[in-house]
Amino acid sequence: MGSQSNFQMKEVPGEFGYVLQDVPHFSDYISDLQTYPNPLRSNPAYSVVKQYFVDMDDSVPEKIVVHKDTPRGVHFRRAGPRQQVYFASDDVLACIVTCGGLCPGLNTVIREIVHSLDYMYGVTKVLGIDGGYRGFYSKNTINLTPKLCNDIHKRGGTIIGSSRGGHDTTKIVDSIQDRGINQARVYIIGGDGTLRGANVIYEEIRKRGLKVAVGGIPKTIDNDIPVIDRSFGFDTAVEEAQRAINAAHVEANSAENGIGMVKLMGRYSGFIAMHATLASRDVDCCLIPESPFYLEGKGGLFEYIEKKLKENGHMVIVVAEGAGQELLPTKNEEDASGNKLLQDVGLWIAQRIKDHFAKQTKMPITLKYIDPTYMIRAIPSNASDNVYCTLLAQSAVHGAMAGYTGFTSGLVNGRHTYIPFNRIIEKQNKVVITDRMWARLLSSTNQPSFLGPKCPSLTNAGQLGTYDKVTGLLGCLSLKP
Amino acid sequence: MGSQSNFQMKEVPGEFGYVLQDVPHFSDYISDLQTYPNPLRSNPAYSVVKQYFVDMDDSVPEKIVVHKDTPRGVHFRRAGPRQQVYFASDDVLACIVTCGGLCPGLNTVIREIVHSLDYMYGVTKVLGIDGGYRGFYSKNTINLTPKLCNDIHKRGGTIIGSSRGGHDTTKIVDSIQDRGINQARVYIIGGDGTLRGANVIYEEIRKRGLKVAVGGIPKTIDNDIPVIDRSFGFDTAVEEAQRAINAAHVEANSAENGIGMVKLMGRYSGFIAMHATLASRDVDCCLIPESPFYLEGKGGLFEYIEKKLKENGHMVIVVAEGAGQELLPTKNEEDASGNKLLQDVGLWIAQRIKDHFAKQTKMPITLKYIDPTYMIRAIPSNASDNVYCTLLAQSAVHGAMAGYTGFTSGLVNGRHTYIPFNRIIEKQNKVVITDRMWARLLSSTNQPSFLGPKCPSLTNAGQLGTYDKVTGLLGCLSLKP
Amino acid sequence: MGSQSNFQMKEVPGEFGYVLQDVPHFSDYISDLQTYPNPLRSNPAYSVVKQYFVDMDDSVPEKIVVHKDTPRGVHFRRAGPRQQVYFASDDVLACIVTCGGLCPGLNTVIREIVHSLDYMYGVTKVLGIDGGYRGFYSKNTINLTPKLCNDIHKRGGTIIGSSRGGHDTTKIVDSIQDRGINQARVYIIGGDGTLRGANVIYEEIRKRGLKVAVGGIPKTIDNDIPVIDRSFGFDTAVEEAQRAINAAHVEANSAENGIGMVKLMGRYSGFIAMHATLASRDVDCCLIPESPFYLEGKGGLFEYIEKKLKENGHMVIVVAEGAGQELLPTKNEEDASGNKLLQDVGLWIAQRIKDHFAKQTKMPITLKYIDPTYMIRAIPSNASDNVYCTLLAQSAVHGAMAGYTGFTSGLVNGRHTYIPFNRIIEKQNKVVITDRMWARLLSSTNQPSFLGPKCPSLTNAGQLGTYDKVTGLLGCLSLKP
Amino acid sequence: MGSQSNFQMKEVPGEFGYVLQDVPHFSDYISDLQTYPNPLRSNPAYSVVKQYFVDMDDSVPEKIVVHKDTPRGVHFRRAGPRQQVYFASDDVLACIVTCGGLCPGLNTVIREIVHSLDYMYGVTKVLGIDGGYRGFYSKNTINLTPKLCNDIHKRGGTIIGSSRGGHDTTKIVDSIQDRGINQARVYIIGGDGTLRGANVIYEEIRKRGLKVAVGGIPKTIDNDIPVIDRSFGFDTAVEEAQRAINAAHVEANSAENGIGMVKLMGRYSGFIAMHATLASRDVDCCLIPESPFYLEGKGGLFEYIEKKLKENGHMVIVVAEGAGQELLPTKNEEDASGNKLLQDVGLWIAQRIKDHFAKQTKMPITLKYIDPTYMIRAIPSNASDNVYCTLLAQSAVHGAMAGYTGFTSGLVNGRHTYIPFNRIIEKQNKVVITDRMWARLLSSTNQPSFLGPKCPSLTNAGQLGTYDKVTGLLGCLSLKP
Repeated sequence: MGSQSNFQMKEVPGEFGYVLQDVPHFSDYISDLQTYPNPLRSNPAYSVVKQYFVDMDDSVPEKIVVHKDTPRGVHFRRAGPRQQVYFASDDVLACIVTCGGLCPGLNTVIREIVHSLDYMYGVTKVLGIDGGYRGFYSKNTINLTPKLCNDIHKRGGTIIGSSRGGHDTTKIVDSIQDRGINQARVYIIGGDGTLRGANVIYEEIRKRGLKVAVGGIPKTIDNDIPVIDRSFGFDTAVEEAQRAINAAHVEANSAENGIGMVKLMGRYSGFIAMHATLASRDVDCCLIPESPFYLEGKGGLFEYIEKKLKENGHMVIVVAEGAGQELLPTKNEEDASGNKLLQDVGLWIAQRIKDHFAKQTKMPITLKYIDPTYMIRAIPSNASDNVYCTLLAQSAVHGAMAGYTGFTSGLVNGRHTYIPFNRIIEKQNKVVITDRMWARLLSSTNQPSFLGPKCPSLTNAGQLGTYDKVTGLLGCLSLKP
Repeated sequence: MGSQSNFQMKEVPGEFGYVLQDVPHFSDYISDLQTYPNPLRSNPAYSVVKQYFVDMDDSVPEKIVVHKDTPRGVHFRRAGPRQQVYFASDDVLACIVTCGGLCPGLNTVIREIVHSLDYMYGVTKVLGIDGGYRGFYSKNTINLTPKLCNDIHKRGGTIIGSSRGGHDTTKIVDSIQDRGINQARVYIIGGDGTLRGANVIYEEIRKRGLKVAVGGIPKTIDNDIPVIDRSFGFDTAVEEAQRAINAAHVEANSAENGIGMVKLMGRYSGFIAMHATLASRDVDCCLIPESPFYLEGKGGLFEYIEKKLKENGHMVIVVAEGAGQELLPTKNEEDASGNKLLQDVGLWIAQRIKDHFAKQTKMPITLKYIDPTYMIRAIPSNASDNVYCTLLAQSAVHGAMAGYTGFTSGLVNGRHTYIPFNRIIEKQNKVVITDRMWARLLSSTNQPSFLGPKCPSLTNAGQLGTYDKVTGLLGCLSLKP
Repeated sequence: MGSQSNFQMKEVPGEFGYVLQDVPHFSDYISDLQTYPNPLRSNPAYSVVKQYFVDMDDSVPEKIVVHKDTPRGVHFRRAGPRQQVYFASDDVLACIVTCGGLCPGLNTVIREIVHSLDYMYGVTKVLGIDGGYRGFYSKNTINLTPKLCNDIHKRGGTIIGSSRGGHDTTKIVDSIQDRGINQARVYIIGGDGTLRGANVIYEEIRKRGLKVAVGGIPKTIDNDIPVIDRSFGFDTAVEEAQRAINAAHVEANSAENGIGMVKLMGRYSGFIAMHATLASRDVDCCLIPESPFYLEGKGGLFEYIEKKLKENGHMVIVVAEGAGQELLPTKNEEDASGNKLLQDVGLWIAQRIKDHFAKQTKMPITLKYIDPTYMIRAIPSNASDNVYCTLLAQSAVHGAMAGYTGFTSGLVNGRHTYIPFNRIIEKQNKVVITDRMWARLLSSTNQPSFLGPKCPSLTNAGQLGTYDKVTGLLGCLSLKP
Repeated sequence: MGSQSNFQMKEVPGEFGYVLQDVPHFSDYISDLQTYPNPLRSNPAYSVVKQYFVDMDDSVPEKIVVHKDTPRGVHFRRAGPRQQVYFASDDVLACIVTCGGLCPGLNTVIREIVHSLDYMYGVTKVLGIDGGYRGFYSKNTINLTPKLCNDIHKRGGTIIGSSRGGHDTTKIVDSIQDRGINQARVYIIGGDGTLRGANVIYEEIRKRGLKVAVGGIPKTIDNDIPVIDRSFGFDTAVEEAQRAINAAHVEANSAENGIGMVKLMGRYSGFIAMHATLASRDVDCCLIPESPFYLEGKGGLFEYIEKKLKENGHMVIVVAEGAGQELLPTKNEEDASGNKLLQDVGLWIAQRIKDHFAKQTKMPITLKYIDPTYMIRAIPSNASDNVYCTLLAQSAVHGAMAGYTGFTSGLVNGRHTYIPFNRIIEKQNKVVITDRMWARLLSSTNQPSFLGPKCPSLTNAGQLGTYDKVTGLLGCLSLKP
């Protein structure tokens, strides 16, 4: 995924331990920049009160559970419009690109970038890069007008297409220069791989001294991006997952020793599985990548299934796509985005369960397996995500107009902020299985913790949440039966 | 609504301007209290790691948009289980009461209080008080068991019934004593009127020296409770409101000069109307109580409607039920909760619009009026509200077990906290029309601000958000045509 | 609504009492007509087998509950493509007009007429008449292309607009001639008033000897068109009505003596109310125009409500908009379509119920009134109606191409047929309250029949279904208390 | 599946070619039967008019597309209550059993049988046989009361459980006798295998001379039961399938050369796939068991896919689970119901498509495969199916009370009738690919007919609809590439 980043964090100290982790700005590497009054000043909707513009000093703390003597710690710059902007509306171009898998809300983000640029800042030249990163150097682009985008938020997917991989930094930045663009904004919507790419593009642009702002909008249906509260589309995904869980519950209920199994998204992070389980209240077992488990023997999954079936006659299992990967026969492949190709753990476990109970003639089971992944990814965003996407898009537009670059917009403790790329890509957000949310889940499902005597790392449970980027696996490999 | 409160805020100072606004505790007025180890310590789901229990010193700041030299300000106590509890599971009773109008999620809150008490704390005696406050001194109560409550989160409404008014502090506290209860938790779910009542009940209980904890869970579909991020059911309500807006849009679109008008909830606060408008993107005008407007003349509503119809041939108007009350002929009545009875502003404005355009023979209009209020209130909560209600209920249960009383559980900047009653009831949360969210709405609808030269208070716009509890009206009365 | 019809039924006799009630054809009044081979003959999808074309002699019986010796009775001509057509694709024009209130499926019908004309018959000139009948002589029309119509079936409403009234036969036929059209098809989608108008237009066209086919598609969300099995959109409406009934049920359930009342469409026919009640199973009383009722005294509505509240503590009432009109104070007005303006019976009865129980201090009630009318009308059609609308539209296209005119397409006993206008407009379809469907409803709700000794017409119950077009009222007026 | 049937059709002739194919009756094999007046006669809801009871001579024709000289043909007995019944309410027992896969509406049917028996006929002893046929001789049964069943129609699945197979006629009839039942009704809800079993049970009961009525309710989500208009749950299934098709459309649209593939139910009959395709209008290719196809070469599927991708950049394919089975490598297994185990044709074709295009480096495709089967089966029935299930159940109850046995209730040309078992089980209902409905589909998708020169049977297309029960395959095997 390109050269190593040389990122230097811009940090501004303050009183009582306050630190601002700032985002890059054109003025960091271009001198004699011209500024213009923000056109919003003359917009009737905004002109009423000056408070509309964000105070340059506003910042938002990263950690807010504090004691009375806790130092104030890391803060991020608050997002929003500034009094001065660094682009004149007429002579600039904006590009939007969407990368990776589908996620509810992509079209809302696109729509709102286009609408905000036009209605707020009078920028009318907006290009959609067709089909992900590789669209930069292929021929097709789409002229995105407010009219074209008017109803797209009611549709799932992305109207400008998406793809994995295709990231060639030099060719991308060349392509930006080739279009005769010397003033531009590039909005990149994608997951952690995509944003690592965006960071490298930003550094190349900076090296070439171009007045091109690179703004990211973190997209991950799995919610595995760190720092931010949640990623857009997550709410919608959890909501839609309820349908599959309900169906699994009905199927399980209507058969003798019925087991309904639902596979949900979550390569490395089990957030969707965990939240869908908590929201549903019909799930008896939730398996996620962060919480190792084993199938056979005392305290294992088979034993738990047998117990549940004897008690209730049926059960519902939710499994995240990345759960239990350490149990599966190895297969060393990656997809075009560099994600490790995971075997379908749902099918694999389903088959293991069937095999196990087939040997126990006294307990014939009926297992129904549901994989709603594409039905969840492809729906339009719900109202809550629509509002969220709108604000993310507007923040990104305001930030780039104000001369910031190399940033993502993101929600931190309920406030919209600008976050430096390297905080977003340094690690993945994961369910901390020693934290209270997971305890709530365990309490709600009554499933075993699978943290029996077999797992020595229990004594060091705090580290279970730490994820090893190199191996892609959690530590407790000795858990394997 | 009973006697005046003598509430004294418990405040704990800390470094660099830190203040903890604490909630009352049994130990404030009862001596020699016995404590017990939290039963969760021996629960397999929780026992794995000690982190599960909340550090006694954890707190959450109220304001988090800060500068590098801003003092730290007010904090609230973090919610969650404590290592020690003040009740033994066997000899205590819990009561749950729901008051006021319906709101998505009520049944989820009830379910989770019952389940948490039983599964976490072994408390099996839980009474549902039938039909609101007056149920305390009427005969009917409902034994709430985990089994009975198992599927109620999939239904709208409240299984224990609700009503307005019926609050007689003395009779309620007598009734609690009469049941031979000397150790009890009372969970009160309701809006600001209800919580003012809960506060008086708490004070009476304290005066009598009873070991009865009073915990509130703020319920208001309008989101008009201060301090907290949002009230439960709000997300669901905004989502469901989209249906009505879509219908209004279709009706408007299919007629010549079609106007679709939707009335949404919001007596004093326009949050549902504002969020539903922002989420939909099909609305051309959103009228809320906080933003005064006028009908006739330059810059008025009629002029704007005419302009929009000429441009687009149709338009959609969303009006909160409390909007424009200052325009309506007066009517001095209150409902049983003491809420001012509002005239149906939607019907009134609809008729005024029809009358206005009937006189203008060149522009015959077709206006369709939709009031989805009860269809919104009565649906079950969505996944996101289900998780939210679960955590609110668990927080309330943990708090009361830990000896806290006179508190509500509430989400503050994304963290669950305990908030003293008087912070919740001191004023109403309102849309601040000089803030950016409202500016975003104006920008999205392109509607006029209705803040023309007619309104002198514009020069003092910051105060428009201030609400006068006595008159129930916003200041700018000279706006009336 | 224009001159009196001189319609002469074309009847063809057959064996054992068989009668074909045929539809008019160009050859009835134009001689020397040229025919062309149906272009579908060379369409790969249809060319495979000859069975695709309808046998000219195919017909469908109107009555199919028979005894072994029952004569065969009235039949209608089967709809579908004919081997020969009477228009060449290039030199003809088609117009589509939608009239009256919205109904789910209008856009699907429009889409499928446009697509069928183009893809099946190569007809590319299709005009949408803007805003109902009056659009014929106003200036605006819309060129309907397959591309423009491609996704409209996913939206509610009608993209060509609709209105009531505006029917001036001479101006409409003049306008058709003025456009230089001497070969045309006109597709008219509307209710019984609209189709009466269509019939007069057909007769004027016939009088002028024009080669213009008039084809109707019956549209009535109320299902009040006779002969046909059901009208399009009806299924969708009944489905959507469930939401309102569920909400009413929840509201009623959550209050002491709660009454949830839902008003559904149905001016003169209670089909939606009846089917929605049968589908829901939560309704305790269903009031429809065909079944007179009274409020006070023994066997009246108040008595039944009191009984239900005492038994269950709550109840749900569904009332069709035209129910109980004979009880209301008179008001002699008509809307632009000539429909009697009905008072809002739901609001009126709701108020009467409140007044009645307000006097009975021992039984305070809480009544919530829901009017989901526009939310039901404005939704897109469901899958079943989508298929139905597709077939109706294709039938109409095939019929007009085959030279038939003065007909509607319609489903008779599950088969698509062509029905002469006068059979469709001669009377309204009504719930026959002496038939088994209504008995099933009474049995399901356990409501009284309101057919006590007060109603003399009981002895003649078979006539209750007969509707008097002049007064708009059913006979049993002595039912009024 | 048990011994061969010796069924003798009861046929009653009438005038002009009329034939009534009657259902068996107790009086066929038991003499001196006592009758009782139907309790409905004294039910207020039904007592009003005599028309409520079905005329004994009412019948409904099977074929209704007729010519003026067509003989009248086969008729079925009309369903409904009779004036006389053959059971006294007190001393009889009813059993309900559900067999085979889930289908929306099962619970509604159960509910309505229970409610009708109790509220209409005063029969309170109703047993639910747990888990399909084998539940007859296992120990568990469920007492089905009206209260228990009150809300079950809002849930998917079947509350009495279901299973495949387990049919042992002798043990079942023994079990019926062992329960001391000498007067009983048995309601059997299932597909064609189940009804073949029901027929054998009926014959055994008749042989033993028992006064036990056997009534069937045809259940098949695939709509593959002959004679009847459609099976219950079919509408709901087609509606729900739209979600999956929409998702596939979005996924396809958002990728370069995106292919969305949806597998729908339909072992031997493609009705769901066909109707879902017609309702959606987003599908480019629909593959069903009745229409053979081939992958490679001219006129094959690959060629068509390539063409569509070049034209539109994406496409949507719907494939019924039984489509193209003749293409797959053989596998000779059956499930417990005796259904041939089908390989997952969707996965197989998806892999073949991927392999094919992987070799063509110039056209990289992205294929997303969705299998919504269990999510469709498990939802509750929609309003239209709810009404339908209600009437089916009531018909079955009326029929058994009236002494009929060995029958199914079923909708024929929109009328409820009683159909002898052997008409229902003699063959499967299949999409006739030479009929107009399939032509409409071909015209809507523009897909090839796959009936090229390779298929000799084309000259005999009328027989393609004929299905060979022995091989389970359609004739044109030479189609294989």
